[in-house]
Amino acid sequence: MKSYRRELWFEVSSRRGLINITPQVQDAIRESGVKEGLVLVNAMHITASVFINDDERGLHQDFEVWLEKLAPELPYSQYQHNGAENNGDAHLKRTIMGREVVVAITEGKLDFGPWEQIFYGEFDGQRRKRVLIKVIGE
Amino acid sequence: MKSYRRELWFEVSSRRGLINITPQVQDAIRESGVKEGLVLVNAMHITASVFINDDERGLHQDFEVWLEKLAPELPYSQYQHNGAENNGDAHLKRTIMGREVVVAITEGKLDFGPWEQIFYGEFDGQRRKRVLIKVIGE
Amino acid sequence: MKSYRRELWFEVSSRRGLINITPQVQDAIRESGVKEGLVLVNAMHITASVFINDDERGLHQDFEVWLEKLAPELPYSQYQHNGAENNGDAHLKRTIMGREVVVAITEGKLDFGPWEQIFYGEFDGQRRKRVLIKVIGE
Repeated sequence: MKSYRRELWFEVSSRRGLINITPQVQDAIRESGVKEGLVLVNAMHITASVFINDDERGLHQDFEVWLEKLAPELPYSQYQHNGAENNGDAHLKRTIMGREVVVAITEGKLDFGPWEQIFYGEFDGQRRKRVLIKVIGE
Repeated sequence: MKSYRRELWFEVSSRRGLINITPQVQDAIRESGVKEGLVLVNAMHITASVFINDDERGLHQDFEVWLEKLAPELPYSQYQHNGAENNGDAHLKRTIMGREVVVAITEGKLDFGPWEQIFYGEFDGQRRKRVLIKVIGE
Repeated sequence: MKSYRRELWFEVSSRRGLINITPQVQDAIRESGVKEGLVLVNAMHITASVFINDDERGLHQDFEVWLEKLAPELPYSQYQHNGAENNGDAHLKRTIMGREVVVAITEGKLDFGPWEQIFYGEFDGQRRKRVLIKVIGE
């Protein structure tokens, strides 16, 4: 069994943002040499997500509006977690969007449906944060 | 290490529906010959889910009502994603329910608690769509 | 390829509660002898979760308030699932929080960011319930 590890680093200049990381994940798989296996891609921070959906600008605006409805940023005082920090909403938003994805590797590639793309979802940006890619297989 | 891949195809006749796919996943594991490992089961489309919960009709009605409350289908105009399509709500519903499950394989079987069942969740049906099963192990 | 399996048992004395299970997962990895691989940690019951977030008391109170807003326990009559049971809300709360996590194992340890901790989330307690840990790798 082979295994391979890579970190991706991000510094999103706004509080929230979505970044398509599919090419970086595909590149990590290529470098791993794994032809059949699984790849785990996860946020290493608890106010960020990795998820799979469509790379469509309107949808990304819908996610922003929807997450603000389900877990509003303001007022900060609504969250017990806030005080030293003000990112209570980001922990909840990341819970909705998910920490990680696991994707099949088949014939050395991401085994994807027609519109699947992997995104890093930042909900408490303006600092350096990481994503982990771990590949296992043969 | 062994690996095995199978696709399941669905065409749900309504916009939304839940289908128990546990027998098909168990059958794929049997055919893979894997006794100890992991199985990934994921929707290959971004308006559908694979998730684990109870096969109980009342609960499935509760999911329908609840998802319509958290991410209503109508009015279509509330979503920027809608226009050429009208499935903005389906992308959000699938986000709540999840894209994938990873299940342990032990002694050649799904290593499940007493009530766990695997479902395909369709949120934008009336077209042919796929689920991927990927088994790895020995 | 090595594989290893362990169950954790819980009996939470209240209806809802969160338990940090990171040390038990790390101990299972150590006992497995796996240095590079993946660990799956999942609730074996459909009214409980395994998720990763911060071990911070204020945040845990925020989760309680937030889940009660998104999927209230009362009135029981709002859920078709209730009748013989009254845990309809627990199925929905677990859906938000997630069934499982998959974590990378690197050099024999959980490959974690600075604040990641694994929790068992109980939403229908006062009975004995289980979590499954499955390790695969080499």
